[in-house]
Amino acid sequence: MELKNLHLYWKASCYIATGMIYLWDNVLLKEPLKPEHIKRRLLGHWGASPGISFIYAHTNRIIEKYDLDCLFVVGPGHGAPGYIAPLYLDQTLVKYYPHFTLDEEGLKKLFRSFSFPAGLGSHCTPELPGSIQEGGELGYVLSHSYGAVLDNPKLLAVAVVGDGEAETGPLATSWHVNKFINPVRDGVVLPVLLLNGYKINNPTILARIDEEELINLFKGYGYEPKLVIAEEPIQAHESMAQAMDWAVERILDIKSHTEPFRPIYPMIILKTPKGWTAPRKVNDRYIEGYWRAHQVPFSDARNNPEHLRILEEWLRSYEPEKLFDQNGRPIDEILRAVPKKKIGESPYANGGMLRVPLKLPKIEAFCIDPANKAENTRPLGMFLREVMRLNPNNFRLFGPDETHSNRLYDVFEFGKAWVAKTLVEDEDEGHLSPFGRTIEMLSEHTVEGLLEGYILTGRHGILNTYEGFAPIISSMVNQFGKWLDISSDIPWRMPVSSLNLLLTSVVWRQDHNGFTHQDPGFINSVVDKWPNVVRVYFPPDANTLLFIVWQCLQSTNRINIIVVDKQKHPQYLNIEEAKEHAMKGLGVWKFASNFPDEEPDVVIASCGDIPTKEAVKAVKILIEHCPDLRIRFVNVVNLFCLTPNQEHPDGLTDKDFDSYFTVDKPVIFNFHGYPWLIHRLTYRRKNHNNLHVRGYRENRKIGIDLTHLTNFLKGRGGITTPMQLAILNQIDRFSIAIDVVQRVPKLSNKAGSFVDEMKNMQIKALEYAYNHGVDMPELDE
Amino acid sequence: MELKNLHLYWKASCYIATGMIYLWDNVLLKEPLKPEHIKRRLLGHWGASPGISFIYAHTNRIIEKYDLDCLFVVGPGHGAPGYIAPLYLDQTLVKYYPHFTLDEEGLKKLFRSFSFPAGLGSHCTPELPGSIQEGGELGYVLSHSYGAVLDNPKLLAVAVVGDGEAETGPLATSWHVNKFINPVRDGVVLPVLLLNGYKINNPTILARIDEEELINLFKGYGYEPKLVIAEEPIQAHESMAQAMDWAVERILDIKSHTEPFRPIYPMIILKTPKGWTAPRKVNDRYIEGYWRAHQVPFSDARNNPEHLRILEEWLRSYEPEKLFDQNGRPIDEILRAVPKKKIGESPYANGGMLRVPLKLPKIEAFCIDPANKAENTRPLGMFLREVMRLNPNNFRLFGPDETHSNRLYDVFEFGKAWVAKTLVEDEDEGHLSPFGRTIEMLSEHTVEGLLEGYILTGRHGILNTYEGFAPIISSMVNQFGKWLDISSDIPWRMPVSSLNLLLTSVVWRQDHNGFTHQDPGFINSVVDKWPNVVRVYFPPDANTLLFIVWQCLQSTNRINIIVVDKQKHPQYLNIEEAKEHAMKGLGVWKFASNFPDEEPDVVIASCGDIPTKEAVKAVKILIEHCPDLRIRFVNVVNLFCLTPNQEHPDGLTDKDFDSYFTVDKPVIFNFHGYPWLIHRLTYRRKNHNNLHVRGYRENRKIGIDLTHLTNFLKGRGGITTPMQLAILNQIDRFSIAIDVVQRVPKLSNKAGSFVDEMKNMQIKALEYAYNHGVDMPELDE
Repeated sequence: MELKNLHLYWKASCYIATGMIYLWDNVLLKEPLKPEHIKRRLLGHWGASPGISFIYAHTNRIIEKYDLDCLFVVGPGHGAPGYIAPLYLDQTLVKYYPHFTLDEEGLKKLFRSFSFPAGLGSHCTPELPGSIQEGGELGYVLSHSYGAVLDNPKLLAVAVVGDGEAETGPLATSWHVNKFINPVRDGVVLPVLLLNGYKINNPTILARIDEEELINLFKGYGYEPKLVIAEEPIQAHESMAQAMDWAVERILDIKSHTEPFRPIYPMIILKTPKGWTAPRKVNDRYIEGYWRAHQVPFSDARNNPEHLRILEEWLRSYEPEKLFDQNGRPIDEILRAVPKKKIGESPYANGGMLRVPLKLPKIEAFCIDPANKAENTRPLGMFLREVMRLNPNNFRLFGPDETHSNRLYDVFEFGKAWVAKTLVEDEDEGHLSPFGRTIEMLSEHTVEGLLEGYILTGRHGILNTYEGFAPIISSMVNQFGKWLDISSDIPWRMPVSSLNLLLTSVVWRQDHNGFTHQDPGFINSVVDKWPNVVRVYFPPDANTLLFIVWQCLQSTNRINIIVVDKQKHPQYLNIEEAKEHAMKGLGVWKFASNFPDEEPDVVIASCGDIPTKEAVKAVKILIEHCPDLRIRFVNVVNLFCLTPNQEHPDGLTDKDFDSYFTVDKPVIFNFHGYPWLIHRLTYRRKNHNNLHVRGYRENRKIGIDLTHLTNFLKGRGGITTPMQLAILNQIDRFSIAIDVVQRVPKLSNKAGSFVDEMKNMQIKALEYAYNHGVDMPELDE
Repeated sequence: MELKNLHLYWKASCYIATGMIYLWDNVLLKEPLKPEHIKRRLLGHWGASPGISFIYAHTNRIIEKYDLDCLFVVGPGHGAPGYIAPLYLDQTLVKYYPHFTLDEEGLKKLFRSFSFPAGLGSHCTPELPGSIQEGGELGYVLSHSYGAVLDNPKLLAVAVVGDGEAETGPLATSWHVNKFINPVRDGVVLPVLLLNGYKINNPTILARIDEEELINLFKGYGYEPKLVIAEEPIQAHESMAQAMDWAVERILDIKSHTEPFRPIYPMIILKTPKGWTAPRKVNDRYIEGYWRAHQVPFSDARNNPEHLRILEEWLRSYEPEKLFDQNGRPIDEILRAVPKKKIGESPYANGGMLRVPLKLPKIEAFCIDPANKAENTRPLGMFLREVMRLNPNNFRLFGPDETHSNRLYDVFEFGKAWVAKTLVEDEDEGHLSPFGRTIEMLSEHTVEGLLEGYILTGRHGILNTYEGFAPIISSMVNQFGKWLDISSDIPWRMPVSSLNLLLTSVVWRQDHNGFTHQDPGFINSVVDKWPNVVRVYFPPDANTLLFIVWQCLQSTNRINIIVVDKQKHPQYLNIEEAKEHAMKGLGVWKFASNFPDEEPDVVIASCGDIPTKEAVKAVKILIEHCPDLRIRFVNVVNLFCLTPNQEHPDGLTDKDFDSYFTVDKPVIFNFHGYPWLIHRLTYRRKNHNNLHVRGYRENRKIGIDLTHLTNFLKGRGGITTPMQLAILNQIDRFSIAIDVVQRVPKLSNKAGSFVDEMKNMQIKALEYAYNHGVDMPELDE
């Protein structure tokens, strides 16, 4: 590919990007520019666009020269014009959107469509072929790219990293992912730092440190950086072509190894002016090479003749008459700068096309006998180990260093990915291996980004994390949900595997880690989002968990959140019962109800394994003390069953809801998270006024006053016990029993003495915990 | 301070840390260790403890040698034993908790209290003097430390960075804060990377790269790193003392400058074995120098005689009989290793003691005439500029590069902090200055951490950010709220200034930036939290915003969230009205009600500036069309007014609530965020069943079917207009008017034609936007 042609391709891209921002008409500048040719509302971001197009064009070149399988991932925010323009020129866009033809009419439609209602957005949105990340929220380009190349040994992901984005935490740490990449089994990420020096209104840090510092930083991250300083375009093309060739040669050398090792990967720092090729100054204010070029460089071209003149001069500086023929078709030289394998047509960027369903083992082989207590996550670990065995290149587990703690360690039979140094100690259950199937790095952001990149390119995975620290990635998960939501509406985007998040080490067992580790609020940040995307499951036991995960691993385009604890807990359902229960999403538990077939006096409901345990115990106490009380026990696995069916596909009809929860009986609902969430989901239900929800509360008032236990009863900051935590939040068996007795009219004469007895049990439990530091053994039977 | 004594101090610290984890009795090992001396429940984390104590002891040494004002900030998670032990030895702990005396009884109480209910937690919780960060959620030690030294020129913050924590994104980018620190005006952070090599179950990345890479990384971050390799304690003390002296000398040299510049600050990398001084192996499994030392190194000492023997051997290896006298008092040599200025007594760690209330200008000087439209945030920027003028060393504004975009640019009169390179362009409205009062870095995590550190040490500040990206820090804000919640209960912790978060560039005006920028969900992640801490305000206009901020800047120990847009909007209240309205938290707007003094037919309520604008317009339409309709207009500023007063201190009583919202009339509530949030706050109110909330919805179904606008009506992904966004979410004036007419019985005969007219207006508005890319000008009057 001749650099001369590549330069023309880039010039045409810059012209188009400028036109997309400014022009409503006269798109080829066949006549002098007039105010009415300018868009009424100027939107779009010019600053990063020329740099992105430049890297795009040079990626085209190496794709053609070396016959590469390439994925082009755009990090800089609002960089879309710089991506859309070359995508149009290489005729990918027209394949997906037939009106964007390579002629004057198509160009006009493109200009008008950009940043216009119902048109193309100002980021690399899912609507754009070749994109796997929008870049609206910054920081994820490297983790997405690294996720994409895992188990794709032939894939090269060119990751354009913005120097603004590089200041975010998630990006800053994701450079280190190179320590998990096995060059024999995985592909390569070639980061290109687009050092254009400015953000919206500030210089970037990396542009204002010494070159030596900059080089050291990337050496420290484990790369071999090459600095390309671009000012004059022709020289820049030559330097960039050399640098790209150097990088590919380095990569090919790395890929020629047949044994895994930790290579030092090449990376490129491309230093360009911000808004490169825009006017240097307008009204004596700096534009090119300054932050003012970030968005619309100057905005009054419709009303200010001087701005109009400058804009025309700017546009004509690209010599559109030499780039397009009379019909608006790009000249042949430009079309010759397009590789056969086009960036926009990379199958990796439409991962659903490549997606092969997982081979799943039968869950029956891992189910447990509900007669015995079990760690709910342990059988899941064994199941996932077999998933790894059956799908050696198609499934990964991710986590921030908690997989072992979360009792999933059976998966370590297939190792933890690691190509950095190893020591003799690692032989002792270190499980480190270049071929490891679990990736653990103490950055929730990075492992979430890796999983996203992995499934966006057609594979499958799960992230496991402590529930209390899941909120660290709530924003990322929301952004990913937006991507899925939009993607689901795009006919050519094939469904990808769901994002599966396993939240464990849950709030109710963070008694020993303290207050900072207690937060069931992650689900609150997603329940209001896209009903077609979000699912939340609370399996009550190990067998139900197995089925839920089995199901989630087959689903597509969803975010499945599964909340379950890792400690030893009572078990309830055999595998057949668990399947049936989970498929319905909720159910009456006959073994925990008395008179299960009669209209009850009270419904005791639960959602979440630990609240379920307490609720079941409460039933036992109540049956003992109030044999006439008709109790129906309902367990909810699929949280969205509670939602009206008009609002969520998994929601129950009112009729079905009423059949579980009655229309007039008290419902005591023991919930895993913040109690208001249940009200938010059910406030439209007929029996809502009788619904009494217990759950985790930050503002605790309990009816127990023991001065010598004052600090203890606050139960925050320091250390508690599981039973204390339950009592303080009134999700414990005694509180539920009290609540039932107080709310069922026919028990009113019983209430006084029973309540006293229950309170005494609570006091006994609290005093035991206070004195011994552990719960009374009989409470944990 | 003699190293020999320092070594004894450290040995005693290690002994105490081990004892805290294991011992219930026989705390001085006066008799052979027996099973009953061991705690029943072994909790705590040994791994980082010896390293933290080691750095603590060496910090003591430089404090004494150089007479330093020092703050010691502990990053590693669960590092508390390594902090509590020396805190006990230097007699700080006993000052705050008199039972932790320096004798056998006090030691026993300390051991029993640790990780025991109602005792001391396993992190550096607020209960510990000298701590400003708990370290439960990792990643914030450097941003907290840097926040602490801002405007404290004499302060040295020794920041212990865990090598696990160093993998988090927030930590990885916070090294770069050194580019904002002016050595003349600010203090110094001395980072000490505790490179102990392991996390819970994995090696750390930084421990498994070449030394050259490691050094390059920190040089790249702009530090001069010194590597101290600690294996044999005596040698380690000598190397560490030399390194600390070197660092202080470097710092003193930097501090001797009188003109600002960008220094290369020293930092220390302390390489120790994980769980240093624990047994190397137990049961042939590695402990010291391996991840198994992370928590309780071996756990069966109560039942397994071999474990008991090893534990005793381990404890005796510290020679407790030489460290403590018969009464359990540490020997004089140890007490001589305590500096006069004790770490635990640093006033900077109890910032409320240092806090000087802000001098606030009168808001009347910045208020605007409500007759004209205004950018709501612009007058605030002018007000904050004056706050900066009056409080030159006491107030800072923080943001991730959006302060200008958010229309607060008047504050730039006092510059943006910057000590990195400057260029000629910066003269052109760059505002960079070593003395700048605004700090902008494109890391929400870092600026949030800086603000937290700044207010924890007694100062004042505000963070401004786009509403859509506030969720990036929702987890951080929650962790900070926990800190405030606990701190408020600790008598000796003086109140600190509130954390003020200004969320602007709100969802309703992200029409041009698209779907990724639309998220009003941040508040959902905090409303369930500590009612004594969280406040959420939605000022409807510029004057109300001024008063709210004025109030927030005087409040303490709160998280104040203020949501307001930056674009030009109608104004409603003059400054006196605004004050009264904001103080009440909500109010009937007579000018927007007809028959305001009568019982209404309908209540139209609003919360948030843009929904308020639409609701007010709806009233206008309704009055025009239905002159008999009695409308009461209620605007809500303080979101928690809606909550029952039992649940939140700002909550209205039921009686007051009913007086605004009636007990039986339809209430159409136009809300800024997700509509369910209003239901969550009000479901206990009498009139809740008549409450109809409109707000931002992810699942849109509107009663308009225009096939040629199909994509446009989805309104997601790409670009929209403000009015389109409003209509799609049905918060627009027409939708509200329709709703009112349909819900007020006496208008039933009117409904048909009126609804048609409103729908036609919507269609006209949508078609105009679709065709012109902007809203009909008359809709924005």
